Amino acid sequence: MPVTKVEIRRGTYYDSAVLMQLQAQLKDLDNVLTAAVMMGTVANKDLLKQNGLLTDSVAAAHPDDLIIAVAGTDSEAATSALTRVDELLTRRQGSEQTDYRPKSLSGAVAQAPDADWVLVSVPGRYAAGVVREALDLGKHVFLYSDNVSLENEISLKTVASSKGLMVMGPDCGTASINGAGLGFANQVRRGPVGLVGASGTGLQQVMTRIHELGGGVTHAIGTGGRDLRQSVGAITARQGLNLLSRDPETGVIVIISKPPSPKIVATLLADARQVAKPVVVYFTGYSTAVATSDETNIRFATSMEHAAKLAVSLTEEKASSHTSPQLPTFAAGQKYLRGLFSGGTLAYEALLALQNYLPEIYSNVPLKAEQKLENPTTSKKHTIIDLGEDEFTVGRLHPMMDNTLRLERLAQEAADPEVAVILLDVVLGHGAHPDPAAELVPAIQSAPENASDRELKFVVVVVGTNEDPQDMSSQVERFKAAGAHVETNINAAADYVGRLFSDSAESAALPPVDLSVLQRPLDAINVGLESFFESLQNQDASVLQVDWKPPAGGNEKLMSILERMKKS
Amino acid sequence: MPVTKVEIRRGTYYDSAVLMQLQAQLKDLDNVLTAAVMMGTVANKDLLKQNGLLTDSVAAAHPDDLIIAVAGTDSEAATSALTRVDELLTRRQGSEQTDYRPKSLSGAVAQAPDADWVLVSVPGRYAAGVVREALDLGKHVFLYSDNVSLENEISLKTVASSKGLMVMGPDCGTASINGAGLGFANQVRRGPVGLVGASGTGLQQVMTRIHELGGGVTHAIGTGGRDLRQSVGAITARQGLNLLSRDPETGVIVIISKPPSPKIVATLLADARQVAKPVVVYFTGYSTAVATSDETNIRFATSMEHAAKLAVSLTEEKASSHTSPQLPTFAAGQKYLRGLFSGGTLAYEALLALQNYLPEIYSNVPLKAEQKLENPTTSKKHTIIDLGEDEFTVGRLHPMMDNTLRLERLAQEAADPEVAVILLDVVLGHGAHPDPAAELVPAIQSAPENASDRELKFVVVVVGTNEDPQDMSSQVERFKAAGAHVETNINAAADYVGRLFSDSAESAALPPVDLSVLQRPLDAINVGLESFFESLQNQDASVLQVDWKPPAGGNEKLMSILERMKKS
Repeated sequence: MPVTKVEIRRGTYYDSAVLMQLQAQLKDLDNVLTAAVMMGTVANKDLLKQNGLLTDSVAAAHPDDLIIAVAGTDSEAATSALTRVDELLTRRQGSEQTDYRPKSLSGAVAQAPDADWVLVSVPGRYAAGVVREALDLGKHVFLYSDNVSLENEISLKTVASSKGLMVMGPDCGTASINGAGLGFANQVRRGPVGLVGASGTGLQQVMTRIHELGGGVTHAIGTGGRDLRQSVGAITARQGLNLLSRDPETGVIVIISKPPSPKIVATLLADARQVAKPVVVYFTGYSTAVATSDETNIRFATSMEHAAKLAVSLTEEKASSHTSPQLPTFAAGQKYLRGLFSGGTLAYEALLALQNYLPEIYSNVPLKAEQKLENPTTSKKHTIIDLGEDEFTVGRLHPMMDNTLRLERLAQEAADPEVAVILLDVVLGHGAHPDPAAELVPAIQSAPENASDRELKFVVVVVGTNEDPQDMSSQVERFKAAGAHVETNINAAADYVGRLFSDSAESAALPPVDLSVLQRPLDAINVGLESFFESLQNQDASVLQVDWKPPAGGNEKLMSILERMKKS
Repeated sequence: MPVTKVEIRRGTYYDSAVLMQLQAQLKDLDNVLTAAVMMGTVANKDLLKQNGLLTDSVAAAHPDDLIIAVAGTDSEAATSALTRVDELLTRRQGSEQTDYRPKSLSGAVAQAPDADWVLVSVPGRYAAGVVREALDLGKHVFLYSDNVSLENEISLKTVASSKGLMVMGPDCGTASINGAGLGFANQVRRGPVGLVGASGTGLQQVMTRIHELGGGVTHAIGTGGRDLRQSVGAITARQGLNLLSRDPETGVIVIISKPPSPKIVATLLADARQVAKPVVVYFTGYSTAVATSDETNIRFATSMEHAAKLAVSLTEEKASSHTSPQLPTFAAGQKYLRGLFSGGTLAYEALLALQNYLPEIYSNVPLKAEQKLENPTTSKKHTIIDLGEDEFTVGRLHPMMDNTLRLERLAQEAADPEVAVILLDVVLGHGAHPDPAAELVPAIQSAPENASDRELKFVVVVVGTNEDPQDMSSQVERFKAAGAHVETNINAAADYVGRLFSDSAESAALPPVDLSVLQRPLDAINVGLESFFESLQNQDASVLQVDWKPPAGGNEKLMSILERMKKS
């Protein structure tokens, strides 16, 4: 009769690869039906249950406990298998060690002082300590480990950035430096595309497709999935983008990420607009509104496949020069946009498109609930109002026919010393006001009278055709004559407005990372998964493996005592 | 000293245009400083306050009350202005009536029996009744009015659809039928682009841009903003799409809307895939993942401007024929997809792309909180699992290196009789498993043994290059030899999978609307805003204005009594 025996080991550390191999070896033993070697997490216990290995002691195991479960043909077989565990573990560890290996990171640095990089893939709870040590030793870090706290990520990246060092990760699956792949990395042709990616397999997918489409890659800089959160501030992504912008081999830059926080979107895109190279952006699942022929150097992709295609096609294109609009000189206190719309969808499209410049726009039809205006009749910071919403139209003609409300609001906004730009839509056509310019132009012309100490910029999007009853070209000319900037599509208008505010999204530059890190052949020290060491060896990169063991043999109690002794 | 006098009229109805004119006339009277005529909504009261017209009686007014406020140079001037209100109202109403006008819709239909359309722009609370009457008389409806309840919208559209009639709206700002604009509509060139729009100014923006880019429009069918909610079921949008698909003059179709509910996205796109014409889709603010060279007839736009450009460029293109994949014959109970991913971003991208086919996919990394799997080890309906999430990887190698977990899960899914398709990613490259096919192919081959009564379709996306250590072409060939469909990018794989399930998103076809409604010159009866009547006259369309008054003179109490008498 099959019998399951279980051993629980508490507070001891083994490399995941070692555990995988132990499990395979146990399964291969005579009279063993199945075996499982895994940590006591909820998911793993569930798995053991499905395999009929859930004993009482398995059920009681903690996430930090190592479970070794063996089902044998009889009790003796199971017990005998368990007695061989230590022997199997020892045999495995002996089999691979060939060269002398430093026992510590500092020892490794002494042995390989020119190594630029430290690769860290030890379990999450030990990783921050190793990274801190690497930064103290002046090394850049590729941090594969997951389960590293957000607080640690922030403090490590802040320290690194101040030293001009990079921390790629935590949970960074992929990077490629000067042709050498770190972590999981495909072998791709060298070429002019440089990538920054907060998503591991996203980077891999785009890189492999670039290769398949005939393109090639300079470098791929991983950031880890949380780098683009506001609390982390995209430190690594910004360092990477800046590095690639200075790298003469990189002609096109691709940025891939799950949707960053709104402020980070604006910051990163502001950084990207400063780059004198095309930048392809794919924020997976990010919704925005962009026309394809952007007047900036930024191209938004709609999928990973699209990002790869854009990157390859842009390397073949001559980079077009992007002229910035002539910016008005706003007075010191002039900071805000006020959009007064008669068209609901035009207002919504403007909000979507302006996200790429201004992270926080209040509205009566906001993209996010927290940006809902408490009182739609009073603007707040950047504001876009849809005056055609029901709240404004009960018993009143639609603002496309009746400008009364808009004229009053326009005067109110023009009188606000914090307002810099007023954006209006003018929708022509049958059913609409017979001559909107007749009412709006005088209001635009009289606005500066109330704002003589500052420049108020009007941007008008005229939606219409030359066959409309209002005579579109005359409408456009009259708005232009009044000093307004006029566009005929909301996407272009939103881009123009965004660029008027481009300063506001810029964040202080980070200390630059020395470009030499991309120019020297990869030279690294690996702490953790042996397969990453082997992988770099296979790529003929210079790499040194540290024979790392957790402090105090992984005993958490002892570790915390040691830590306290260190500090005191 | 300026004095403000206010008159509140309760429960009386006036056309908004009449009120606007009354306000202008009051302002023009001698010794009147300013005047306001508006309903007592919160927003309007706020506005009156800003204009210094907020008296106690204004503050106490209800949203249904008409406020007439006049500020005069003195008390006498204000009072005298108010006494002239009725005279001004009468004069205005008398001034325009020239021809005989029917007093009721049925009278109008008797006078113009061939009119296909009834345009309704009376205040929302009266609108449903007028629409119901129009449907009873066998007419299509363009319903401009807002403030119509969702319940009324559903019941009106359900009735209309059963009769092969359309209700565009409520809150439908724009439409164009055979060159004649309804509501707010630009004059655009006739041409091969037909549009369906749940957004008024969205339609106008795209139409004007199509015109400016040299293209032209057959028809634009408005739906109202709520049509694409699940409760309404996109009845009008589906009718419109179907009509345009049958219209020989329409070569390219554009659909514009704010993001519909997920089920409606799938339904509408399933409808669109059946159309033998290119369909450009722009769901403002909808996030998805689509490669640009779709293998379907559907093209997603990234902005209104992009939608216009796509529409124009597609009319110039020869329509390419889209071959459907050879579909396996699934058994009756086989309904679900199970995706087992090692790459987190690949899983996320698959979820994003598959939204366009399958509205509800459960996951441990879901797009929406309500689609989070309660237990990641157990699938539910359509499921996509990221096996690289922390919950699965504590103390275990990443699934790109260690297939154990995936093989177990694969066997579990294959044994589930409800499973039709299993989607896997295989990520090659340095650091990854040296030969994933060696482990996964036998599992794929043995799966049918446990599923002899049904066909299990495997779809594998292999992410790698021909320079990767695993020999990509051999990996691909071995998966193909095992009967799997293989792609090298997740976007193509997701589209393939989606098409395998294309039946499931299809909804029952609605009774077709007779195509003649698009082929006859517009012939309409207008109930409500006189400006829409004038606008159609200016376009030389055949139109008849009803001299409409609300039932019981707009007295709500009397109306409900009349309503009850009718029913009994």
